Amino acid sequence: MPKDEFEWIQQHTPERYSHPGVIEGIGDDAAVYAAEEGFDEILCVDTMVEGVHFKKQTMSAYDTGYKALAVNISDIAAMGGIPVYYIVSIAVPSSWTDEELQNLYNGMGELAEEYHMDMIGGDTVSSDTGLVISVTVHGRVEKGRHLVRRNARPGDIVFVTNPTGRSAAGLEWLLEHGRDSACPQPFQTLTAYHRKPRPRVKEGRVIAGVAPSASLNDISDGLASEANEIAEASGVHLQLNKQDIPVAGELEEGFPEDTYWDWIFYGGEDFELIGTVREKDWPLLKHSMKQEGLSLYDIGRVKEGDSLVTLLDGKREERLPKKGYNHFQS
Amino acid sequence: MPKDEFEWIQQHTPERYSHPGVIEGIGDDAAVYAAEEGFDEILCVDTMVEGVHFKKQTMSAYDTGYKALAVNISDIAAMGGIPVYYIVSIAVPSSWTDEELQNLYNGMGELAEEYHMDMIGGDTVSSDTGLVISVTVHGRVEKGRHLVRRNARPGDIVFVTNPTGRSAAGLEWLLEHGRDSACPQPFQTLTAYHRKPRPRVKEGRVIAGVAPSASLNDISDGLASEANEIAEASGVHLQLNKQDIPVAGELEEGFPEDTYWDWIFYGGEDFELIGTVREKDWPLLKHSMKQEGLSLYDIGRVKEGDSLVTLLDGKREERLPKKGYNHFQS
Repeated sequence: MPKDEFEWIQQHTPERYSHPGVIEGIGDDAAVYAAEEGFDEILCVDTMVEGVHFKKQTMSAYDTGYKALAVNISDIAAMGGIPVYYIVSIAVPSSWTDEELQNLYNGMGELAEEYHMDMIGGDTVSSDTGLVISVTVHGRVEKGRHLVRRNARPGDIVFVTNPTGRSAAGLEWLLEHGRDSACPQPFQTLTAYHRKPRPRVKEGRVIAGVAPSASLNDISDGLASEANEIAEASGVHLQLNKQDIPVAGELEEGFPEDTYWDWIFYGGEDFELIGTVREKDWPLLKHSMKQEGLSLYDIGRVKEGDSLVTLLDGKREERLPKKGYNHFQS
Repeated sequence: MPKDEFEWIQQHTPERYSHPGVIEGIGDDAAVYAAEEGFDEILCVDTMVEGVHFKKQTMSAYDTGYKALAVNISDIAAMGGIPVYYIVSIAVPSSWTDEELQNLYNGMGELAEEYHMDMIGGDTVSSDTGLVISVTVHGRVEKGRHLVRRNARPGDIVFVTNPTGRSAAGLEWLLEHGRDSACPQPFQTLTAYHRKPRPRVKEGRVIAGVAPSASLNDISDGLASEANEIAEASGVHLQLNKQDIPVAGELEEGFPEDTYWDWIFYGGEDFELIGTVREKDWPLLKHSMKQEGLSLYDIGRVKEGDSLVTLLDGKREERLPKKGYNHFQS
């Protein structure tokens, strides 16, 4: 690991920042930046712990960095916001080499470049056990336009941006074979969904722009769990239609039905967006997404009733519990 | 530890926030707040790892929470800013009880109340080893008035807000006796400096208000180390006068001279402020601090020359190296 803070600063200070609002970037006690007029500020942090959230067996250092930033960008996307800055705090054990650490920062850097984000601070401390990485992301959203979970109303359409379950399928393969094994199709695609998820910022921006009364949540713990969060926050019943829930071709072709439905509902780490929108706003929202080349699936309706989620399958209706599972413990 | 996110949210959502700018506090994917006109935004994060930065032997859960927030408030103070919001990300091992975790949040809460700060988000994950706590603090400062390390100029007066070394002395006692032993004076005072440091926000605000061309840094790694940071960032030589450096009575009376000077220069975790100010601004700055009941000590001068720090002791001048020490490894 870097011997001191100055070395870290020298290694990571960019020649220029993408955002002109950066006043003090990396190198002083804290970062300073200008707020943008007409916007509110968004802030979130997520911590990933080696052995709990990732393992070297399934995730390279590069992928770990990429994902640590991605999960936070996804939180900004779920507010309908634009990610702008990030700060990285990292506790590094002696088992991590300088090269691995550099790769971890490269993984964040690649994703940051794609989303035009600037790293404006951070620190590196030592850990006597596994690596712990905390990424703080700052974003912004037009005043009064941020989206929350509590806005679902009876009559709303429930939507999801893309099929879920692929990340969990990819993780299963990685846990069995390790990340260095030759990876045939469809596992190459599936493991990519796990290792390098795509935060749905564009989708969130379109939804915030077109449907200010939408509710929105990102899928970190599985479709069922996040749908339940919307139901609880809004005090409504979400009724999903099984035949409308998108199933990825890679899952349908490669796995038994029971297995892939479990991943679709409970797999987690898809970082797709789930939400609800007033029925009257649906046609414009669907059209706007299509114009941007983005997907949106109508997967159910919001009903009056207790705060819960059910799945309608023909005439059968069953409850979708709020559960996820810990892959490393199963 | 809390069983799920919702339990955490219920436990920690306050009935009201101190700051009217909070738009979304705890409970959604991210926090949202309004920027204040005429101000720039400040952001910093610090991570504390059990076994590396603290141990149960010397710090209660309450003190650990207090300190995890204090170190970040200190970074805001070192920019001349006002701390406003904080977000807590925490990885909890099974060895921590619910009560300890609650005490940790209480420790943060006490300090936050004192500084009129709001906790607006966070998450709790599990750790398979020690506790890791990452606190992100957001603050603000009047546009163009933030203070950095790189502003020291030849001729400037070097200042420190209060005597240093007491935190290290307190830690030595705690390491030897443990935190549950009866603690006689002066150790009660000294251990309090270690367990519950006072971030110097008021001092930073006066300096930013009166002396916009000052340089400023907070003392986390020791007076010598932080003075060197100012010297390096500004490209100047800081010459400190030994007879002007304040020595706490508790140190002078209770310890051999060699011991306490080592703590004063290299002890760390004092969270006092060190900086430099133009000679012409000194009288007004000193007067303004006094009016607020705050201390400020003239401890040296900025000279032209290589980026380093020396200590003048009568006719002898020796270099003060940029070193700290790891108390847990010594």
